[in-house]
Amino acid sequence: MKILRFLLIFVPISIVGEFMHFSPTVMFILSALAIIPLAGIMGEATEEISFYSGPRVGGFLNATFGNATELIIAFFAMQAGLFDVVKASIAGSVIGNILLVLGASMLMGGIKFKSQTFNKQSIEVSSSMLLFAVIGLTVPAIFTHTVAADLLNTRYEGLSITVAIIMFAIYLMSLYFSFYTHKDIYAAIPEEEATPKWSLNKAIAVLIGATVLIGVESEMFVGAVEPMTEAIGLSEFFVGIILVPIIGNAAEHSTAIVMAYKNKMDVAMEIAIGSSLQMILFVTPVLIFLSLLFTPMSIIFNEFELVALVLSVLIANRVASDGESNWLEGVQLLAVYLIMAVSFFIL
Amino acid sequence: MKILRFLLIFVPISIVGEFMHFSPTVMFILSALAIIPLAGIMGEATEEISFYSGPRVGGFLNATFGNATELIIAFFAMQAGLFDVVKASIAGSVIGNILLVLGASMLMGGIKFKSQTFNKQSIEVSSSMLLFAVIGLTVPAIFTHTVAADLLNTRYEGLSITVAIIMFAIYLMSLYFSFYTHKDIYAAIPEEEATPKWSLNKAIAVLIGATVLIGVESEMFVGAVEPMTEAIGLSEFFVGIILVPIIGNAAEHSTAIVMAYKNKMDVAMEIAIGSSLQMILFVTPVLIFLSLLFTPMSIIFNEFELVALVLSVLIANRVASDGESNWLEGVQLLAVYLIMAVSFFIL
Amino acid sequence: MKILRFLLIFVPISIVGEFMHFSPTVMFILSALAIIPLAGIMGEATEEISFYSGPRVGGFLNATFGNATELIIAFFAMQAGLFDVVKASIAGSVIGNILLVLGASMLMGGIKFKSQTFNKQSIEVSSSMLLFAVIGLTVPAIFTHTVAADLLNTRYEGLSITVAIIMFAIYLMSLYFSFYTHKDIYAAIPEEEATPKWSLNKAIAVLIGATVLIGVESEMFVGAVEPMTEAIGLSEFFVGIILVPIIGNAAEHSTAIVMAYKNKMDVAMEIAIGSSLQMILFVTPVLIFLSLLFTPMSIIFNEFELVALVLSVLIANRVASDGESNWLEGVQLLAVYLIMAVSFFIL
Repeated sequence: MKILRFLLIFVPISIVGEFMHFSPTVMFILSALAIIPLAGIMGEATEEISFYSGPRVGGFLNATFGNATELIIAFFAMQAGLFDVVKASIAGSVIGNILLVLGASMLMGGIKFKSQTFNKQSIEVSSSMLLFAVIGLTVPAIFTHTVAADLLNTRYEGLSITVAIIMFAIYLMSLYFSFYTHKDIYAAIPEEEATPKWSLNKAIAVLIGATVLIGVESEMFVGAVEPMTEAIGLSEFFVGIILVPIIGNAAEHSTAIVMAYKNKMDVAMEIAIGSSLQMILFVTPVLIFLSLLFTPMSIIFNEFELVALVLSVLIANRVASDGESNWLEGVQLLAVYLIMAVSFFIL
Repeated sequence: MKILRFLLIFVPISIVGEFMHFSPTVMFILSALAIIPLAGIMGEATEEISFYSGPRVGGFLNATFGNATELIIAFFAMQAGLFDVVKASIAGSVIGNILLVLGASMLMGGIKFKSQTFNKQSIEVSSSMLLFAVIGLTVPAIFTHTVAADLLNTRYEGLSITVAIIMFAIYLMSLYFSFYTHKDIYAAIPEEEATPKWSLNKAIAVLIGATVLIGVESEMFVGAVEPMTEAIGLSEFFVGIILVPIIGNAAEHSTAIVMAYKNKMDVAMEIAIGSSLQMILFVTPVLIFLSLLFTPMSIIFNEFELVALVLSVLIANRVASDGESNWLEGVQLLAVYLIMAVSFFIL
Repeated sequence: MKILRFLLIFVPISIVGEFMHFSPTVMFILSALAIIPLAGIMGEATEEISFYSGPRVGGFLNATFGNATELIIAFFAMQAGLFDVVKASIAGSVIGNILLVLGASMLMGGIKFKSQTFNKQSIEVSSSMLLFAVIGLTVPAIFTHTVAADLLNTRYEGLSITVAIIMFAIYLMSLYFSFYTHKDIYAAIPEEEATPKWSLNKAIAVLIGATVLIGVESEMFVGAVEPMTEAIGLSEFFVGIILVPIIGNAAEHSTAIVMAYKNKMDVAMEIAIGSSLQMILFVTPVLIFLSLLFTPMSIIFNEFELVALVLSVLIANRVASDGESNWLEGVQLLAVYLIMAVSFFIL
């Protein structure tokens, strides 16, 4: 979304602010505003590169870099020991994708078009994978919530790594499924008409530049979370589950809404549900693996996150099974998101 | 259902009983028996008025007065401070509509017809709205059940009002949806052939009369609940979740069953699911708003109610996605209701 | 599956072992290996008898004897007072049928065929019955988990028997449904081409012989559970929920996988889901009734079992609503099973 480009001004402003020791709350806002356009540019660069790499490698790049911003923010949060923020942001990203992005897409699209249809088959594959993936996350959590935590720390670790390996294996197999054995299912989705606008060298340079800057900004952002939450009385959990996902996904969100407005509901659904799926099957295991280099992080989500995840995924499956959407469905998804956000805020 | 008319004899009997200080158990039964036919007459009067008011206002009247009896009983229960009875009766009404009414309709219809079909599209809109609405109710409950109650009383209130406002806004938008932007979805449902039998003046007079009498009977009914439960050892929760909904919905229940028996399964489904939806999106927020005039009531249901609500709504969605019903499906719904009722009774 | 026949050698070996007082762990393994082929032979004998008895009695025999092995093992476990093993094995049988058997069938079938379709209608009847049945089991459990156990023991018993009676009544009605009122739904499923290979007398003799031997082996198996779990540090719960169902169902499992590999996905699904349904609607109530002769067993499952049951059944419904399967779906079911098994193991 080019309209977000002007936010790039916050990249130098936030860096200046860091050296001038602005207050954490100001730094939190400045770095957040800087991350939003950088994430958009990173997505654009990935897409440009995929023109040159052919559809398979391109699809893989898009699938893998699609949540790179969240991955980078989560990496720095993990390094800072903010495990609760990391896990809340994973859950929040799934919830936000399903309720906020899909809800806003259906509402915007539904205002223009009475009823919008989408290719049920490919969306059902994604939404049922999402259901299985969330069930896979829920099972170890429920079984460990009932056992004394201190007694089981070492076992937790083994369980987390096992589940992460299974999730990651499923991720790789799903790429094989969608790029090799069943690529025809996805062929039905109308692609955006597209020709490369950048040279390959430019695209690679932009990708590297954006990645580095997102890293810099994420480090400032994460560094501001703790003092900011203490200063203004916001919970770290709320920051993780509501604010981080909105910042990390803003570029993607706006793309989905524009697609829905252009009556390309398939693309909007695929962005929202596909991105949720990657958060669970790719970003989560990668973070677990990376955490082994520092302090091992467990894959056990807290009960609020689990409830919100399970309910969101049930909604995604309900919505996908229709094969069509309208404005009221969008409003309902947004209403559930609003109720969740208010509940999390009060918590 | 004209067959219930003879129960009107309990209107004078109960009033005499009140003056003669009959025992609470007797008064509970007498007023309950009086409410059943009055609720039926109120529904009939609303329908008659809608012939004169045109389809839109008529639809609105039907949608809004459809649960008037439950609203009146709940209002008096709320005024008497019986918050647990009020919330149990809301949950019980949804559960009863889905399991008892739909189950009995499918069984009765299925005995006569091997398989009955219904218009999936409109039922799916209602049943998925019901899913979202119940999820909307579940979220704040789960998040508050885990926090110390006394610490959060003031926050509860704010949360309850926020959720009530969101629910009520969705209700208004759903009326706009079904009477304006997407009224064609509902046009497919075959309406009962109908001409007005009463004059408009008569209908209005009957509506007012029935409403006043339901108010009188409800006050006696509610007044008898506490001493009756103490006398015969029944829990207030059981009264709220099983008995009140059966009494308040008896007229509607019998209509749904008759419709199913006439092979108008669409109408039976719409009564059961539409009525459940109104309980959550209309009756609940209105009660929360009214409670602000007395002691504010929270929108937080207890875990039994939530579990029963969520399971019933999952069942409703499962049933609706079929597009057809048979006697065994009816028996299964009734069996789940029976198991719930027995569990609640033992509780 | 004839290939499992060679395991019959473990019948005499285990009996010798019993007299020579082999260690419990060895006896556990020997008797388990003996039960597997006996269960297969029992299934074969039942099928042979049904050729002579006509389709209705045959269907009834197959439906009732289909889980005879689990019933016999559970009976001896119940007699030995191992109620936790009994209930874990019921839950584990449902979970294993849906996740392990169906997952392996879809994977094996999906490796050979790109996409396999099945008759949605009959599978949806079974999978929605399964949903209702599991909800029926969940409701009393949730309501009793919150009440002090000692206070309610006598009420528990009444509740368990009531629920068992309701379940069993539904079971009988479902037989009436599938063999009388709606037998055409099931007619669509392609049956294996079949002629009797044994005489009726031989079939009856084999059935009796296999049943007796399964009884003998089950008693040895159950007798080894407690000392074995103590010796090697495995939990009884893990034995009940993972090992017992694999042993009891091995013959059925291999049939389902072979059917999927022959592209008869309908048969594979019907085995997996039908067998789950019988465990809940037939085996469970029968065990409750039988327990009245000894120490009454409650129908209340623990929360791990309930969570695993509910999630598995949601997955079954999701899978059934597709009407088709592929290898990735199979892998996902297996992954959920693997995560569950690892979690149970760590527990």
